[in-house]
Amino acid sequence: MTSPIDPIMLDKLAQVAVKVGLNLQPGQDVVVSGSAETLPLLRRIAVEAYKAGARLFIPLLSDEELTLARFQHGGDDIFDHAADWLYKGMAEAFDGNAARLAISGDNPMLMAQQDPDRVSRANRALSKAYRPAAMKISNFDINWSICAYPGRSWAKQVFPDIPEDDAVAKLAKAIFAASRVDQPDPVAAWAAHSAALHARAKWLDDMDFAALHFTGGGNDLTVGLAEGHRWVGGGGKAKNGIECMANIPTEEVFTTPHRHKVEGVARASKPLAHQGTLIENIEVRFEAGRIVEARASKGEAVLKKLLDTDEGAARIGEVALVPHSSPISQSGVLFYNTLFDENAACHIALGRCYSECFKGHFDAEEVMRRGGNDSLIHVDWMIGSAETDIDGITQDGKRVAVFRKGEWAS
Amino acid sequence: MTSPIDPIMLDKLAQVAVKVGLNLQPGQDVVVSGSAETLPLLRRIAVEAYKAGARLFIPLLSDEELTLARFQHGGDDIFDHAADWLYKGMAEAFDGNAARLAISGDNPMLMAQQDPDRVSRANRALSKAYRPAAMKISNFDINWSICAYPGRSWAKQVFPDIPEDDAVAKLAKAIFAASRVDQPDPVAAWAAHSAALHARAKWLDDMDFAALHFTGGGNDLTVGLAEGHRWVGGGGKAKNGIECMANIPTEEVFTTPHRHKVEGVARASKPLAHQGTLIENIEVRFEAGRIVEARASKGEAVLKKLLDTDEGAARIGEVALVPHSSPISQSGVLFYNTLFDENAACHIALGRCYSECFKGHFDAEEVMRRGGNDSLIHVDWMIGSAETDIDGITQDGKRVAVFRKGEWAS
Repeated sequence: MTSPIDPIMLDKLAQVAVKVGLNLQPGQDVVVSGSAETLPLLRRIAVEAYKAGARLFIPLLSDEELTLARFQHGGDDIFDHAADWLYKGMAEAFDGNAARLAISGDNPMLMAQQDPDRVSRANRALSKAYRPAAMKISNFDINWSICAYPGRSWAKQVFPDIPEDDAVAKLAKAIFAASRVDQPDPVAAWAAHSAALHARAKWLDDMDFAALHFTGGGNDLTVGLAEGHRWVGGGGKAKNGIECMANIPTEEVFTTPHRHKVEGVARASKPLAHQGTLIENIEVRFEAGRIVEARASKGEAVLKKLLDTDEGAARIGEVALVPHSSPISQSGVLFYNTLFDENAACHIALGRCYSECFKGHFDAEEVMRRGGNDSLIHVDWMIGSAETDIDGITQDGKRVAVFRKGEWAS
Repeated sequence: MTSPIDPIMLDKLAQVAVKVGLNLQPGQDVVVSGSAETLPLLRRIAVEAYKAGARLFIPLLSDEELTLARFQHGGDDIFDHAADWLYKGMAEAFDGNAARLAISGDNPMLMAQQDPDRVSRANRALSKAYRPAAMKISNFDINWSICAYPGRSWAKQVFPDIPEDDAVAKLAKAIFAASRVDQPDPVAAWAAHSAALHARAKWLDDMDFAALHFTGGGNDLTVGLAEGHRWVGGGGKAKNGIECMANIPTEEVFTTPHRHKVEGVARASKPLAHQGTLIENIEVRFEAGRIVEARASKGEAVLKKLLDTDEGAARIGEVALVPHSSPISQSGVLFYNTLFDENAACHIALGRCYSECFKGHFDAEEVMRRGGNDSLIHVDWMIGSAETDIDGITQDGKRVAVFRKGEWAS
């Protein structure tokens, strides 16, 4: 059986994951999660990691059928529980300077047929268990990265109308292009791309806007920014001193909004695939930073459960700018996967903010004082399109064109 | 592609693993380890586990190529390290009454081509990291079990001269027969088999031998037994109150020798596959319980490293009786896998004893006082054959026939 996935491209993706994504340093452990189906990529990554001096590559492999078995055959009383000890251990590994790599490749619709109440309870329990490790990631304590592998069920979801092998080949090609491994020197291509994102972030930092005003595509949304917010894009330096590229691919520059200063209407420009459910045509209204009305043409119940997760789940912790001309957007593919879809359009994220998006290292309390948000969740959803206009509002109230018709204004 | 493994038999093995092996109780978590290749069995086990009321099935999946990558591409300074946090977490799961299942299915010769020094250092680091969890298993704190899956590289090792698919089919058949899932009612068959082993253990307990004297097949070995030793065979009750069958298959009754009272010569009747290396024609001499001479025609360096692991590694912690007529022995297959080969012949084990093999619950100190042994390792090796004679030596010095020509004397 020949695989529809080009092995040379997998080799290059493994190199990008280790050299660009993690920028793995000698002596580091790597905690790696992905489904067992991603092994053709994981095995190459392990080889690259050990060549780069890794001490131990620790795979935490999942399997869609094992995951589903619980929802299909488990009793009703088991869903408020997760393997706390595993994630506590992972946090301990990060304390010991382990790097973190996640391979995204699962069926984004895996949970679509399962009881939403079970799914929501299980997700909540998992988020709570994962929190000690997740905080170290969102606080950028260690170098971490996510990249993608063209899993079969994901490929079938993205390209339902063509034979399965063709779908896998097509998704593989889209992933390789977005991850820049189809370029002659992928590592150099990433260096150039990262520099361009850094320049955009620097301009926004220099402008130090008080707020951004989104219009077009049904939006009339003012996003106040946190005090001392910092724009981040491309590679960044983790607190362990290692420069890494947290997302492969990435096209965004993003920062922390003020959790009390978001006002108006936001309309999703793409469906949101949230842990197995597709939520379509989201429209929400913010008052004083909080979502006070929420609608969706499909998956509204899941959306509302999500917003009810905790106090911070109905506020936003990230705003991100992506031009409509981004390669992922231009591919025209809806990936049903945040790692890709968030890099096709401007977006906001419900829930937890990134403490790295501040000018200075602040503790949790100071982050909150400056308008950062906290929650068990961090869920991105897309509001940008070819119609997106954005004005930056300066600290003294002037308007500056940031985006026009989906593109950088300058 | 059709699998050479009968899916109906896999269903039955999954039922035996959950209902007999673990006897899983509602509300229990299950920590399951096995290679990703065993997923066709693991998925069935997950379904059975959830049907039996499992709270969470936690897979810890390995992969032979990921394991090998470290030895093939890693630097020389990385092998004294293991993922302590993972095994510490596993011990924590056991404290929370999680059950433990291991699926054996890997290539027993996986490490054969790797640097023995690296292998030995890595094994030692792993044993140390695993110790908190391993102690809870060897102390029988929770219900646990091991069963087997016919992995491809294992099948090729066992049947090197036939086509790969045939080898897998043949190994599958041998595993299913030994695991009694080829019988009309496997669960009932296991109940009857367990009762027969219990009866043997009871007779040996009633005899309360001071020592066993092995002759035949090059052995002249006196194995003194620990004070208050207890014979164990078939199903047993873990300290969490759950009856389980720790090995699928099992044909042995076993107990704890006295670590200072083993004298004479022991000769292996089968090669020992130890974590990837085949050790052939082992012959050792004991003085006052300690191995003072050790030879092997192949793998002697690995054997000696093993004996040097720690103080207890050159003493024995288990003696086990298995008639030569056992089904696994009669199959004539050398499995290169302790779970099977130890059930084909009488054997002894280097290293750690099982505290359950005492009449009473003793703490570590009392176990040692009574002659039990402690070590990072527990490695079984076979000394029994069709020539094995065993005399039991009673507390007042009389001899009683226990085995003659490899079979129970009565």
